[in-house]
Amino acid sequence: MTKPLNIGMIGYGFMGRTHSNAYNRVSNFFDTEYKPVLKAACARNADNVKAFAETWGYESIETDWRKMIARDDIDAVDICVPNNLHKEMAIACAEAGKMILCEKPLAMNVAEGEEMCEAVEKAGVVNTVWYNYRRVPAVTLAKQLIDEGKLGRIFHYRANFLQDWTIADDLPQGGAALWRLDAAAAGSGVTGDLLAHCIDTAIWLNGNVTNVTAMTETFVKERMHNLTGQVEPVGIDDACAFLCHFGNGSLGLFESTRYARGHKALYTFEINGEHGSLKWDLHDLHRLDYFEHGDEGRLRGWRSIHVTDGDHPYMDKWWVPGLQIGYEHTFVHQVADFLEGLSTGKPTNPTFRDALETQKVCDAVLSSAESGQWADVG
Amino acid sequence: MTKPLNIGMIGYGFMGRTHSNAYNRVSNFFDTEYKPVLKAACARNADNVKAFAETWGYESIETDWRKMIARDDIDAVDICVPNNLHKEMAIACAEAGKMILCEKPLAMNVAEGEEMCEAVEKAGVVNTVWYNYRRVPAVTLAKQLIDEGKLGRIFHYRANFLQDWTIADDLPQGGAALWRLDAAAAGSGVTGDLLAHCIDTAIWLNGNVTNVTAMTETFVKERMHNLTGQVEPVGIDDACAFLCHFGNGSLGLFESTRYARGHKALYTFEINGEHGSLKWDLHDLHRLDYFEHGDEGRLRGWRSIHVTDGDHPYMDKWWVPGLQIGYEHTFVHQVADFLEGLSTGKPTNPTFRDALETQKVCDAVLSSAESGQWADVG
Amino acid sequence: MTKPLNIGMIGYGFMGRTHSNAYNRVSNFFDTEYKPVLKAACARNADNVKAFAETWGYESIETDWRKMIARDDIDAVDICVPNNLHKEMAIACAEAGKMILCEKPLAMNVAEGEEMCEAVEKAGVVNTVWYNYRRVPAVTLAKQLIDEGKLGRIFHYRANFLQDWTIADDLPQGGAALWRLDAAAAGSGVTGDLLAHCIDTAIWLNGNVTNVTAMTETFVKERMHNLTGQVEPVGIDDACAFLCHFGNGSLGLFESTRYARGHKALYTFEINGEHGSLKWDLHDLHRLDYFEHGDEGRLRGWRSIHVTDGDHPYMDKWWVPGLQIGYEHTFVHQVADFLEGLSTGKPTNPTFRDALETQKVCDAVLSSAESGQWADVG
Amino acid sequence: MTKPLNIGMIGYGFMGRTHSNAYNRVSNFFDTEYKPVLKAACARNADNVKAFAETWGYESIETDWRKMIARDDIDAVDICVPNNLHKEMAIACAEAGKMILCEKPLAMNVAEGEEMCEAVEKAGVVNTVWYNYRRVPAVTLAKQLIDEGKLGRIFHYRANFLQDWTIADDLPQGGAALWRLDAAAAGSGVTGDLLAHCIDTAIWLNGNVTNVTAMTETFVKERMHNLTGQVEPVGIDDACAFLCHFGNGSLGLFESTRYARGHKALYTFEINGEHGSLKWDLHDLHRLDYFEHGDEGRLRGWRSIHVTDGDHPYMDKWWVPGLQIGYEHTFVHQVADFLEGLSTGKPTNPTFRDALETQKVCDAVLSSAESGQWADVG
Repeated sequence: MTKPLNIGMIGYGFMGRTHSNAYNRVSNFFDTEYKPVLKAACARNADNVKAFAETWGYESIETDWRKMIARDDIDAVDICVPNNLHKEMAIACAEAGKMILCEKPLAMNVAEGEEMCEAVEKAGVVNTVWYNYRRVPAVTLAKQLIDEGKLGRIFHYRANFLQDWTIADDLPQGGAALWRLDAAAAGSGVTGDLLAHCIDTAIWLNGNVTNVTAMTETFVKERMHNLTGQVEPVGIDDACAFLCHFGNGSLGLFESTRYARGHKALYTFEINGEHGSLKWDLHDLHRLDYFEHGDEGRLRGWRSIHVTDGDHPYMDKWWVPGLQIGYEHTFVHQVADFLEGLSTGKPTNPTFRDALETQKVCDAVLSSAESGQWADVG
Repeated sequence: MTKPLNIGMIGYGFMGRTHSNAYNRVSNFFDTEYKPVLKAACARNADNVKAFAETWGYESIETDWRKMIARDDIDAVDICVPNNLHKEMAIACAEAGKMILCEKPLAMNVAEGEEMCEAVEKAGVVNTVWYNYRRVPAVTLAKQLIDEGKLGRIFHYRANFLQDWTIADDLPQGGAALWRLDAAAAGSGVTGDLLAHCIDTAIWLNGNVTNVTAMTETFVKERMHNLTGQVEPVGIDDACAFLCHFGNGSLGLFESTRYARGHKALYTFEINGEHGSLKWDLHDLHRLDYFEHGDEGRLRGWRSIHVTDGDHPYMDKWWVPGLQIGYEHTFVHQVADFLEGLSTGKPTNPTFRDALETQKVCDAVLSSAESGQWADVG
Repeated sequence: MTKPLNIGMIGYGFMGRTHSNAYNRVSNFFDTEYKPVLKAACARNADNVKAFAETWGYESIETDWRKMIARDDIDAVDICVPNNLHKEMAIACAEAGKMILCEKPLAMNVAEGEEMCEAVEKAGVVNTVWYNYRRVPAVTLAKQLIDEGKLGRIFHYRANFLQDWTIADDLPQGGAALWRLDAAAAGSGVTGDLLAHCIDTAIWLNGNVTNVTAMTETFVKERMHNLTGQVEPVGIDDACAFLCHFGNGSLGLFESTRYARGHKALYTFEINGEHGSLKWDLHDLHRLDYFEHGDEGRLRGWRSIHVTDGDHPYMDKWWVPGLQIGYEHTFVHQVADFLEGLSTGKPTNPTFRDALETQKVCDAVLSSAESGQWADVG
Repeated sequence: MTKPLNIGMIGYGFMGRTHSNAYNRVSNFFDTEYKPVLKAACARNADNVKAFAETWGYESIETDWRKMIARDDIDAVDICVPNNLHKEMAIACAEAGKMILCEKPLAMNVAEGEEMCEAVEKAGVVNTVWYNYRRVPAVTLAKQLIDEGKLGRIFHYRANFLQDWTIADDLPQGGAALWRLDAAAAGSGVTGDLLAHCIDTAIWLNGNVTNVTAMTETFVKERMHNLTGQVEPVGIDDACAFLCHFGNGSLGLFESTRYARGHKALYTFEINGEHGSLKWDLHDLHRLDYFEHGDEGRLRGWRSIHVTDGDHPYMDKWWVPGLQIGYEHTFVHQVADFLEGLSTGKPTNPTFRDALETQKVCDAVLSSAESGQWADVG
């Protein structure tokens, strides 16, 4: 018998859509004991949330999130709102005994994140953070290979996340779709929005980061603010780069910007080990590049693996070899794993505690960028 | 007010899944007057179709397709069964006044296809054939560019569809998932299965084919037959290639095989015109390569267009620039266009009549391969 | 002790330059017993050949090729003139007992080629034809792999040679640099100029071709003729494509054109076998793509081999791994092999007799294109 | 009338070969007033230098470099020896009034480099440093585009130089071909050997670097030393990465290592500006990737420019469009420009003074890596 998992969603933006889609689709492809039921969608604007609920099939709406998390018919709350609201909501959910699926980054900073971890751990509620790129099949395959020791000792890890959508200086900041440009709502710029993804993957694949030296830049210093109607200083980082050491002795190099013409959402990473290397690129997310030093010398070359076979992670659930899936599927996979975790009792990574590690690196990066000194992590 | 479109599905294989998914998802992303309702799924095996119906949310099941198409609560029938059954079902649907969405290729041959066209035209029922690759955003973009004259006079069109899944000679033929290897069910091998896709796109982009010279090959001459349990001659073509002339004076070159190691589902095409060229590849379906001769000489180069922006066909409905969609979305787009067509009264291409053109080329190809002579089309 | 090989060069065009460069450079990189000495350059225009001789270091010039091949101090004659002159010169050289290095294609047609073969074989003179692409290190590596059986039974061979430099209809034909557009001088268009390369490589890698069906096209029907000053019909094929069978049972597909926008000199081939596949592309001639089915399933992918290592063919003579060589090096390699052949007595492939096979395919292709029938080769 | 430029070469290693080849070939392709004459080759080992001289055609040999630079028949000295010998030789050459072509990096450190600059400037001798990558046609084209303002305001510059040849821990250090692993001879590891190239190009394309924060790593701490026969500590940096600011306000990110499996000599750079971006990669040095934001929105994409046309830098001297040149040609171009400079009186970049800027960045990088602090340049 299948069991319902009643979802209460807070927020209806870009991430609200990706998550809702994932809840809707998972049972068409994954055979899990628990099945998500879209019980309620919540946001302050009743018209907007009603339209959202209709599009995605939520059974009811709420305009007060505290009311929604008080409802007995909600099992799990999905927190899909700007970063500055995560802490308060997550702690309230924990106290209400609700499971939590929280959008990344975990919090505005480590202090907030630590409070959140303590709350969910004290309450013993199931929790996860939507670092969705772990569940790109190619990235999960990379994880498998590294865990199997295929790369041997690791020497280098490099990642970047390059975009180009904020170059125009007449783009305003703040409000609705542009809250990511507003330091008050987002906490930081590319560091929390984009580098957080790179760091989460890096820690998952290569272990903890120990110290960093960083620089940030804000290329456009003032922008019109949508909430105040005034031209105001830009508080976020437009670009951020850092060098680091990992606990395993390897070196790291990270960079993110929204000022790299020609890159829409180019998240790439590469990891170099004693026996081989791996490369991945979000713009062609269905491929993994792999170099195996053990291949016969004259026939060595980077292999472009089209990660669409039945023996690739998650891919037995979808179509046939050669037919690619897309971005949104990563969320479906996270839901599938979350549902599976409910049956097995195994936490769905990254938990709040896992995601706190990424927060620690972000904080160290911002601190180093400000001080001009190397900063220890954690 | 939205209006329901009640769907009756015949078949539950690979295509049954892609179509069901499309019906389920379209309303989350496209704002159409008509909304598909999964009314009934039909197949001879009650257990299988019941499981299928549960997975995808069909409200009821049938085990006799004639019964299903007689139901008043069915508006449109989706024919998702082996090719040898298309004709009979389609004609019955037409006579029952049902709309028809028929899996490709249209029929076993031109004679059958002609009967089907006449039936739907006589009955005046809405009809379409699932040549889904027309609605890959990159392919639709190619169509736009060609129609706008960006390429000028066309000189060359080449396409291939390369796979490698039937090389093992102990792979049996026939039955369930392997009906495509059985000439009695499929009519032909790669010609109807794979080249038909290439031809459909080619006609859409470059106009009609006038004559062809072709060769076919069956590399493995005998295989165990799943339906008889006997080793039997293989009746399908494992590989097929042909040269042709298009009505516009350009030259064509087509090839398909299931014996090309390293290619899972490599459908590619390229078109060369006076002012520019276009290339596309199913293994990276979210990209279109474009060469514009009008670019400044020293800066000319093939552009790799990442077809994920809001001004690319269909892409304003999905995520944000840089985030790719996958194979299954092509079916969602076809459903969206079909629903839109119900509101506007505009046929959804390719109609049966459109798809008959592809059938004519397939027949000419098979005929030329047998005769060793150039064959005229149609 | 090193021994001189006295070279007499006829012609000074594009190929005269590539060959002269090869003679000049070979001894800087290859340690051979024989060393080329640029003894004489010959052409009708004394000023032009003098300038050419000065640039490349030829010791003397001649304006009458019969005089040059009569000279005792000439050991080997390099025939670098339009195709219609090959036969007469080669036969005269053979009769004069000179070694011959003849530019491709061997002749205007099979009849001429057969005469040439007979002449060199009767005279017992060393002979070779400049099908230089055999000695691209990546192509030679492909040959090694195929000969070692890495691909197993071959199913498919496809090649094309695409250019775009004759699309403008105000480009004249004939004379000097444009003799390739003049049927009287070139014999054919892309068939002898470009497809001949594809066919030579194909025969070398995959064995003889048995029969073909072909089509040709001349897109621009009339062009001003540089020699007559009149607008005259264009006699060459602008484009040619053919299907064929190889003696080993595999299928072939070939195409060449000078009307493919965006391709300057895109010679590519791909060969698919039971155990693996190979792909190569002249635009990145230092790479070979290799797919090995024997790789672990989830890690299979096309390997992009950067053919610049010491264990790659010819590459131990050049720089260090990662540093690519270019087009002109293929000629240096052919000279190196030719010199080595003088020491070992082993013929340098392709000999005239080898190259006659390519001529036979070309003739069959042109014949089939004219007749509209399949044509047997040879 | 052509004028001889008599060259005296010190050294006969890898760089000795690339430079000798350049002197030998330049006059076959470039029409310059001055022509190099290989007058003398010099090295301590008489047998080795004799063999080298024979291979490349040097007229004489010397075993004492002071003797060679004292010769009246030497116009220009090419310093092709380990870094620790550059200063002494260059100063002696300057004092002897000889032109100098010095292998990169200029010196062991800024102090040495400053002395060298002062010496050549005081003596007024023509001087240049072999930062050959400036003269890859694709890189020169990048320079043209940037200088023309095609990219607008620059935001980001990133470069790396990745190799994998020293991963084996049984590779010894020091002596002959391995002097680059010996700190006493090389000064530093990848910083002076590889990053120096990246920095030179960066300064040329993007202007001066103002400050840096860096980290270095030595993965294999001890290696057998070829000169002492003992296992000794490794003094060089195996890997180095740094962040920096450029004078124009853009951010820089640089990395080099010899521990990146799968990369033989992967020098890449990318530069992002307001209006466009450029990318280049030494493994495919004949291509330049270019993104032009001004292209029509739906048709924007990275252009892969095959830099082999007559209107590309240097390429009118070589073959025909589509036919690539290789690594060694960069040295030919530098000689061609040097010879041209002798006629025009224009210095050949980079001069010693230009190259000193790179040295300043290298010193700042090593200093920052040691101190853990940001370091100002110069």
